[in-house]
Amino acid sequence: MRRVFCFLCCALFFCFLMTSQADSEETNTLNMSRQTKRCLDCHENASPGIVEDWRASLHSATTPKMALAKERLTRRMSADSVKENLGDVIVGCYECHSLNTDKHQDSFNHFGLKINVVVSPQDCSICHPSEVKEYVPSKKGYAFSNLEKNPVYKTLVKTVISQKAIKDEKVEMLEESDHTKMDTCYGCHGTEVKVDGLKKVFSGPLILNVPNLINWPNQGVGRINPDGSQGSCAACHPRHSFSIDIARKPYTCAQCHLEPDVPAWNVYKESKHANIYSSKFIYWNFKEVPWVLGKDFMTPTCAACHNSLIVTPKNKVIAERTHDFGARLWVRIFGLIYSHAQPAKGETYIIKNKDGLPMPTDFITNPASEYLINRDEQSARKKGMMNLCIACHSTGWVENHFVKLDSTIAETDKMVLNATLLLTDAWGKNLADKTNPFDEVIEHKWITQWLFYANSIRYASAMTGAPDYAAFKNGWWEMTKNLTAMEDWIKVHKNK
Amino acid sequence: MRRVFCFLCCALFFCFLMTSQADSEETNTLNMSRQTKRCLDCHENASPGIVEDWRASLHSATTPKMALAKERLTRRMSADSVKENLGDVIVGCYECHSLNTDKHQDSFNHFGLKINVVVSPQDCSICHPSEVKEYVPSKKGYAFSNLEKNPVYKTLVKTVISQKAIKDEKVEMLEESDHTKMDTCYGCHGTEVKVDGLKKVFSGPLILNVPNLINWPNQGVGRINPDGSQGSCAACHPRHSFSIDIARKPYTCAQCHLEPDVPAWNVYKESKHANIYSSKFIYWNFKEVPWVLGKDFMTPTCAACHNSLIVTPKNKVIAERTHDFGARLWVRIFGLIYSHAQPAKGETYIIKNKDGLPMPTDFITNPASEYLINRDEQSARKKGMMNLCIACHSTGWVENHFVKLDSTIAETDKMVLNATLLLTDAWGKNLADKTNPFDEVIEHKWITQWLFYANSIRYASAMTGAPDYAAFKNGWWEMTKNLTAMEDWIKVHKNK
Amino acid sequence: MRRVFCFLCCALFFCFLMTSQADSEETNTLNMSRQTKRCLDCHENASPGIVEDWRASLHSATTPKMALAKERLTRRMSADSVKENLGDVIVGCYECHSLNTDKHQDSFNHFGLKINVVVSPQDCSICHPSEVKEYVPSKKGYAFSNLEKNPVYKTLVKTVISQKAIKDEKVEMLEESDHTKMDTCYGCHGTEVKVDGLKKVFSGPLILNVPNLINWPNQGVGRINPDGSQGSCAACHPRHSFSIDIARKPYTCAQCHLEPDVPAWNVYKESKHANIYSSKFIYWNFKEVPWVLGKDFMTPTCAACHNSLIVTPKNKVIAERTHDFGARLWVRIFGLIYSHAQPAKGETYIIKNKDGLPMPTDFITNPASEYLINRDEQSARKKGMMNLCIACHSTGWVENHFVKLDSTIAETDKMVLNATLLLTDAWGKNLADKTNPFDEVIEHKWITQWLFYANSIRYASAMTGAPDYAAFKNGWWEMTKNLTAMEDWIKVHKNK
Repeated sequence: MRRVFCFLCCALFFCFLMTSQADSEETNTLNMSRQTKRCLDCHENASPGIVEDWRASLHSATTPKMALAKERLTRRMSADSVKENLGDVIVGCYECHSLNTDKHQDSFNHFGLKINVVVSPQDCSICHPSEVKEYVPSKKGYAFSNLEKNPVYKTLVKTVISQKAIKDEKVEMLEESDHTKMDTCYGCHGTEVKVDGLKKVFSGPLILNVPNLINWPNQGVGRINPDGSQGSCAACHPRHSFSIDIARKPYTCAQCHLEPDVPAWNVYKESKHANIYSSKFIYWNFKEVPWVLGKDFMTPTCAACHNSLIVTPKNKVIAERTHDFGARLWVRIFGLIYSHAQPAKGETYIIKNKDGLPMPTDFITNPASEYLINRDEQSARKKGMMNLCIACHSTGWVENHFVKLDSTIAETDKMVLNATLLLTDAWGKNLADKTNPFDEVIEHKWITQWLFYANSIRYASAMTGAPDYAAFKNGWWEMTKNLTAMEDWIKVHKNK
Repeated sequence: MRRVFCFLCCALFFCFLMTSQADSEETNTLNMSRQTKRCLDCHENASPGIVEDWRASLHSATTPKMALAKERLTRRMSADSVKENLGDVIVGCYECHSLNTDKHQDSFNHFGLKINVVVSPQDCSICHPSEVKEYVPSKKGYAFSNLEKNPVYKTLVKTVISQKAIKDEKVEMLEESDHTKMDTCYGCHGTEVKVDGLKKVFSGPLILNVPNLINWPNQGVGRINPDGSQGSCAACHPRHSFSIDIARKPYTCAQCHLEPDVPAWNVYKESKHANIYSSKFIYWNFKEVPWVLGKDFMTPTCAACHNSLIVTPKNKVIAERTHDFGARLWVRIFGLIYSHAQPAKGETYIIKNKDGLPMPTDFITNPASEYLINRDEQSARKKGMMNLCIACHSTGWVENHFVKLDSTIAETDKMVLNATLLLTDAWGKNLADKTNPFDEVIEHKWITQWLFYANSIRYASAMTGAPDYAAFKNGWWEMTKNLTAMEDWIKVHKNK
Repeated sequence: MRRVFCFLCCALFFCFLMTSQADSEETNTLNMSRQTKRCLDCHENASPGIVEDWRASLHSATTPKMALAKERLTRRMSADSVKENLGDVIVGCYECHSLNTDKHQDSFNHFGLKINVVVSPQDCSICHPSEVKEYVPSKKGYAFSNLEKNPVYKTLVKTVISQKAIKDEKVEMLEESDHTKMDTCYGCHGTEVKVDGLKKVFSGPLILNVPNLINWPNQGVGRINPDGSQGSCAACHPRHSFSIDIARKPYTCAQCHLEPDVPAWNVYKESKHANIYSSKFIYWNFKEVPWVLGKDFMTPTCAACHNSLIVTPKNKVIAERTHDFGARLWVRIFGLIYSHAQPAKGETYIIKNKDGLPMPTDFITNPASEYLINRDEQSARKKGMMNLCIACHSTGWVENHFVKLDSTIAETDKMVLNATLLLTDAWGKNLADKTNPFDEVIEHKWITQWLFYANSIRYASAMTGAPDYAAFKNGWWEMTKNLTAMEDWIKVHKNK
């Protein structure tokens, strides 16, 4: 009997310790590689924040073999096997920063070890190949190239972020800098990280020779890495905790998908979904795999609808995991002049519309259909999304919601077309010059019509409600006011 | 002694279990009605999100009889009794979705049971009559009708959200769609939900005949329901958890009361109150009834000042519960051209001002006093609000605060009047056409003066501080800039 | 053996109680002063919110002698000793509200005790002298005077917040009110709190004579207090909990440092730092002194980079505590026309630039160098900040980051200079009048260029990323659009 008490007390004490210590304090050193031990010896002092972040991660407490032993739904590794030397040690500094060094231009000799500064999707794919295979060819994977290789976008970028000079009372465009590219568009889209030899850095008492990275730091989703690969897993799984709960929280997506041009986060925040999320998230579990609707969480975050593996409390799969974030979408509602069917491929710069431009529609709404998914694919994806909604809403509710969305998309496209007609009129009357369609007052108004306002309304309609956003914030009020202001601008400039 | 240990250990283990399980996992099926059991049999698979949400609710763990047994301050039911058939079973699907079916046009035969799709305030009033009696005749209850039956508002709505066309270089108004009404104004104000017979839906392997609801889904506060009642309890007590802690969190009110036109949430977020709330809410208790100031929470959320039952740690009532959210307010500071005493009745469309319009003031600030509460009622309500403030602030502090608010209200009204004078001047000179006062460039400027900026400043003053909001964000900077822009617009258009 | 069990069980039970009760329920009355006991007797009923807030504070559970006994890094008191009468009692109402009564114009006889309404930094310095010594002479300490005694700022303030009238179709400036000053600029900067004799207040059944405070309530950072001192500790350590975890949360700084003019908070919210903070803060510890990077928190909040004492898990100091919030900064990136080296002193109104104005640069970017810190001091501070970054980022990463920031600062200054050139052009052509540089349409555009947009971009670059903020939100898009609009405005007005 005493032993039973003893056991119970110990068990209780242990449980108590577990709950009061959110993270284990000591790294499990049992299965740590010799090289990672060496890394930690210095970096514990040189960069303690990185080390502690990693210590709180699953990587520091798991070997690939342990991860491989899990059943399909609960598995976090998609590889079937890993090389012997990696399987039995926890996933430490060296295990990730020493992969594919031959391909890495940022590889360097660091106290006798060959180390890459940047860990790329190609490296992560050793253990997580499915995720990388989905991500890399997607629009996100191509986010850098889709901006850089599309002359229309390049012109918009240059017009906005280039240095300017004033000459004869006129604003003149100069060049844009790489630094400002990193601060703005390429901060989200990703930069092309290059290596320009080695440079000396002073690290405490030491002088080190390290790769001189250009266009770095950057964690944009389509980053071109020094091993030639594209993408950045750290964009959504930041730093060294690689935490799935961070990726599932909406703040991750909100880094780039926010007002005024991609207001997914702002619209979500106003919705009923977010009302419940914000009120209740502290009681929810964002760590479990698979993610159980109704047990782990009650309302969706971005991840739930767009990429996570979701199951019912009875373990029935509602949606399979995907790291192609457009895979569940049938229509593209932002970023371009008019809405259109999702592009068939991640490389959107290959599209050619009727005007010969790499844009998914022409100037008056006609789609470049051969580069876009067809109606069957659209229907299939829409049905998949409806299946997610139906887990919490009645079928009639869901059907009505999507009929409304279709109507909103059509109406906003017309409101953009109205702005295009006024702009064309101004061009026709020589009140503005169409050479660069992005650099004059009336052209700025036209841009806001599609890039800010039509987008916002479509998001508000799609994501189940942000009525004030669609009305007065960045919605119908602004769209209507903008048309009136364009009309007024034409009138004032015509009569001069 | 051993029995004492045994008891202690068991107690500890039990406590531990309680803290680690936020919500009970299994629904209490003991007192579940036969009909609700049938609902769950299917819906656990067909819509697991709804079922789990309900399982986490108090409704799933309480019978009306249990709820009625509580003492006055702790009671959550306001009915004195309920019909025998409802009293002894937990509040399940059938108990709410089967009420007053004769009045419900959305009632249908669902596997042999008569089910309403929409649960209305009239249905909720079976157990919660006081709440419904306060809510329904309030401005919130009339939110749909106050928009729909007021020709001035209707013109503003139509001007903003109607489709447009470009004709002879001019913007022309077409019709507005029901879908866009739902996406915008009526998203918050509520729609008129109608039933157009039955329609077939495909639910997994089944084909069901369900009511074909029009203007649905919607959870606007003044929704007209298919039983003829008005209001939506789900606007603030969302989905099937009916959670009081969601309603008490500011994200609930923030769905509709946010910038630019009703910036209560934005102003609150910048305030000292919200600084403390945001820093500390994870340690507070939003579930207790009554809500104990200083124990359960330290600074107010919207609910604390505007509707909750608040008591001191010694159980002295500081404020009684109300579901008329204007009941504690004496002055109306948003939504209209000038501030004014609160309307005497919830139906504001019955008001007539000196100009014969259904507006609480005329065009130059004079109130339509006979439709507004009188000075005595204003004083009484203000005193009640001061009583709330005094629970945490000294009397001198509170008095000064409200003197400042009065001054801010007077100053902002004058700044709007300045804009009105400039607009009248433009109309007088035929630079703009007063037929529709909402559709020209200078009229848009005039609208923002009262609908966005004067409102924002008054909120910032009333809710103890959002200095930057009142200064540069949507406040004095914008108000002053706007007058200057109106002056400039007149000058430019006059000289053409 | 039984005693061991007994001890274990009791210990467990105690631990459990501690975790389930966030705050102790009963004030420790053992060491409470006789006077504070008297305060509580009434105020427990008269202002229970204040009393409970204090009961949850460390002040209510600590005597100065206990606080003095801690070792350097863990100490929260910076005094070496306190007077005998204060040392042995907990820090209650009377202990703070009865200090230096001879200096306090707001001192009054309150039921036989001499009580000050306002507790000033001078009073707090009895126990916390280092904090006050750092704070008071800093820019924050001088925030009131730096606004009030600088004629350029005064003109801007007056132009923005003064009442206006319309006369002959023109906007005319009248006076600004003290109430609106409190609502806006002086809400953050602080007011000058004065005492105008006594006034009667009705407090429940009692009539009290209390000091009649003018420009009160206010918690602005540079408040002038009724004892002649400047500053308000309550600005960041609000109300009666004096909670260090509130001060360390970003919502505290966000009360004043937010868009559009000081968008530190908005930029932080979009950053990777905040992505991690928002996802994880509920698991972090904001109460410990010193604050341990990697244990207590993983990513910085404002306080971590700008003022907290930060140590590594091995207790190595990364940054010492400071309450001069500019002490770690080398360049000033907001609030003025062009960026410049940090002012050498907190009193910035003493600066004189080449034009003879109290501004740190002249109208075309030249710094008033003798009033600013020199290059050596700039380098030293920058190095200190880099040292903080290096705790979590590689040296190469950090160096690149600051090179980019320098580039961003130079580019944004040029973009502001472009706006200045256009404005000067408009003045030269008599299209606008330079007498007041803040009150015409083109001048408003010029102000937004530096006060809103250039600032926003610099913040976004400095605080490791808010790409959309720097691009479309309040950044390059707006800066470029603004120059184009200024050019257009000149063209339209020239031709009239």
